[in-house]
Amino acid sequence: MNSLRIGVLGGGQLGRMMALAAYPLGLKLEFMDPNPQAPVAPLAALTIDKLEDKKAISLFSQGFDIITTEIEHISVEGLKAAEAAGVVVEPKPQTFEIIQDKLKQKEFLQNSDIPTPEFCGIDGLEHLKSVARDWGFPLILKSRLSAYDGKGNALIADTKELEPAYKELAQKGGGLYLEKVVPFTKEVAVMVARTRSGAIDCYPAVETIQEDNICKETRFFGEEPWSKAAKDIATEAIAKLEGAGVFGVELFLTESGELLLNEIAPRPHNSGHYTIEACHTSQFEQHVRAIAGLPLGSCAPKVPAAVMYNILGKIEGSAGHDHIKKLRKAALATPAAHFHWYGKDALKKQRKIGHITITA
Amino acid sequence: MNSLRIGVLGGGQLGRMMALAAYPLGLKLEFMDPNPQAPVAPLAALTIDKLEDKKAISLFSQGFDIITTEIEHISVEGLKAAEAAGVVVEPKPQTFEIIQDKLKQKEFLQNSDIPTPEFCGIDGLEHLKSVARDWGFPLILKSRLSAYDGKGNALIADTKELEPAYKELAQKGGGLYLEKVVPFTKEVAVMVARTRSGAIDCYPAVETIQEDNICKETRFFGEEPWSKAAKDIATEAIAKLEGAGVFGVELFLTESGELLLNEIAPRPHNSGHYTIEACHTSQFEQHVRAIAGLPLGSCAPKVPAAVMYNILGKIEGSAGHDHIKKLRKAALATPAAHFHWYGKDALKKQRKIGHITITA
Repeated sequence: MNSLRIGVLGGGQLGRMMALAAYPLGLKLEFMDPNPQAPVAPLAALTIDKLEDKKAISLFSQGFDIITTEIEHISVEGLKAAEAAGVVVEPKPQTFEIIQDKLKQKEFLQNSDIPTPEFCGIDGLEHLKSVARDWGFPLILKSRLSAYDGKGNALIADTKELEPAYKELAQKGGGLYLEKVVPFTKEVAVMVARTRSGAIDCYPAVETIQEDNICKETRFFGEEPWSKAAKDIATEAIAKLEGAGVFGVELFLTESGELLLNEIAPRPHNSGHYTIEACHTSQFEQHVRAIAGLPLGSCAPKVPAAVMYNILGKIEGSAGHDHIKKLRKAALATPAAHFHWYGKDALKKQRKIGHITITA
Repeated sequence: MNSLRIGVLGGGQLGRMMALAAYPLGLKLEFMDPNPQAPVAPLAALTIDKLEDKKAISLFSQGFDIITTEIEHISVEGLKAAEAAGVVVEPKPQTFEIIQDKLKQKEFLQNSDIPTPEFCGIDGLEHLKSVARDWGFPLILKSRLSAYDGKGNALIADTKELEPAYKELAQKGGGLYLEKVVPFTKEVAVMVARTRSGAIDCYPAVETIQEDNICKETRFFGEEPWSKAAKDIATEAIAKLEGAGVFGVELFLTESGELLLNEIAPRPHNSGHYTIEACHTSQFEQHVRAIAGLPLGSCAPKVPAAVMYNILGKIEGSAGHDHIKKLRKAALATPAAHFHWYGKDALKKQRKIGHITITA
């Protein structure tokens, strides 16, 4: 049964949950990650190498029929080399090229007539100041590359914050862009699955609660007034991208009831963790089915409601482990609560180290 | 988080599904099995050694805080040695001593006032013939030890079948016993969970469909007229046994509506596979929670109905693998069907190699 060899770039919690979902399908995923203690390490074969390294990806890919990723910060050149060598890459390298660079991603969405917050590429401090004069405040300055969980973003409330924000982000290189801050009432997310032949299905729309730019909670309470529109926009956006897999689509619901697409992730996403217990097919199983050319499973919910809480690192060292054990015990004593540990023994502050889903 | 070291005796499909359920709980199980290609091999650490070997178990156990099993055919002396060395063994060695020997198990049930089919230990062919004269036919002669999936059992329809049945089974050693064949209308099963402190909860009762003495199908259609009585008997029986874990209890529902306990397994059981999708806590997660001293999860169903079909080996070699791939594709194209592959690459005839659960 294991004749299909599937390699995954990245061995974090998303890879770990992918591997756990793949075994019952008769598929044994293998991983590449720079960290020998990556969350997948105890449960799957792991090659230690750099994800931004073209040659490393190209070499790793040689052993596989299909290459996919659990992270978007990988060498697109490496993916292209793998594809040129005859390996199936899902989603397609071009998709990573668009998504990796957040300015390109926004331009792509704009060109595809998908509503987004107003944005603008920034060429230097003077350009930033001039756009700010036109747009007013608040603004958010963002790194085009490698930003996540609020890292690489700076909120700018007035003119005197422009220069420090610019200096801090510009030194990282890779370019910057600016967005108008959307006065949203909710943040919404939709997981979309796309097969190798381009068929699309999507999961229920959920509300996500962010704190300090990190997702704290996902709420699925059944069909909401904004669900259909969110699913329509998400589906339309993913239909424009190439390649199979599961995609996370994050949107803002504005005060006027408009939905604006904020960001796409070309992989299973934190806002889709609730699907493990709440839907007929988890986003992780769905991703594996999609890239392997197997039929998609049902995205339909099988419970009326679910809430997912992220567990973030708070206390490092052994006191942190004791704290987590207490949390686990409390979670497991709660009816219909499910605990998911990612196997990260270094409990770094504000890093996602697990999650809890409660279904109703 | 992984400070609790848990070793599991046996690395078959039950162990594999246990390991998959344990990772999200933050528990990394390690296994011992004589087969280097055991189903757990790709996803957990595996020590290759004999399960019937006292020394092997004793040596393996040294590395762990808790020892459990996914099979009852293990050296009880080994478990006792582990316990004497300070390792927590769950369920308790005495429980395996009772369950391993099917005659002892029946005597234990009888002494505990649990209804069972009529049975009798057999001391030689003449004794068998004399009991058969008293009881009439049909009868079933069984090996006391190491019998499973119909192996080690012989159905006896009349006097002339007594001698061949006896000769065939007696040569295996370990002793024999005889049962009256129960004219049942249904076979019923209940999974029961027991914590280290003795608290008990049980899953819905299900109907099991056997063919050639192998479970083919499990049907959970909600509460049935016999559900409560089946759960009561199962709970009563498990309350009499020592140790934590999940136990499979198989019963016969007779034409007169009576329930007779057929057999207990001191571990997750084939008839509980449906719990993975159909209940809030799967039997595998529940077993791990129970032995690790964590709170039990809810045994309640979260779907109104579920049917589990076993996939048995039919065609060996590469034609068999092609056949399985077609079956997988068909299963995955069925809404709310879930495929579970055990990773046994030798597709031996009539051996359990996977299962499919469909929820409604």
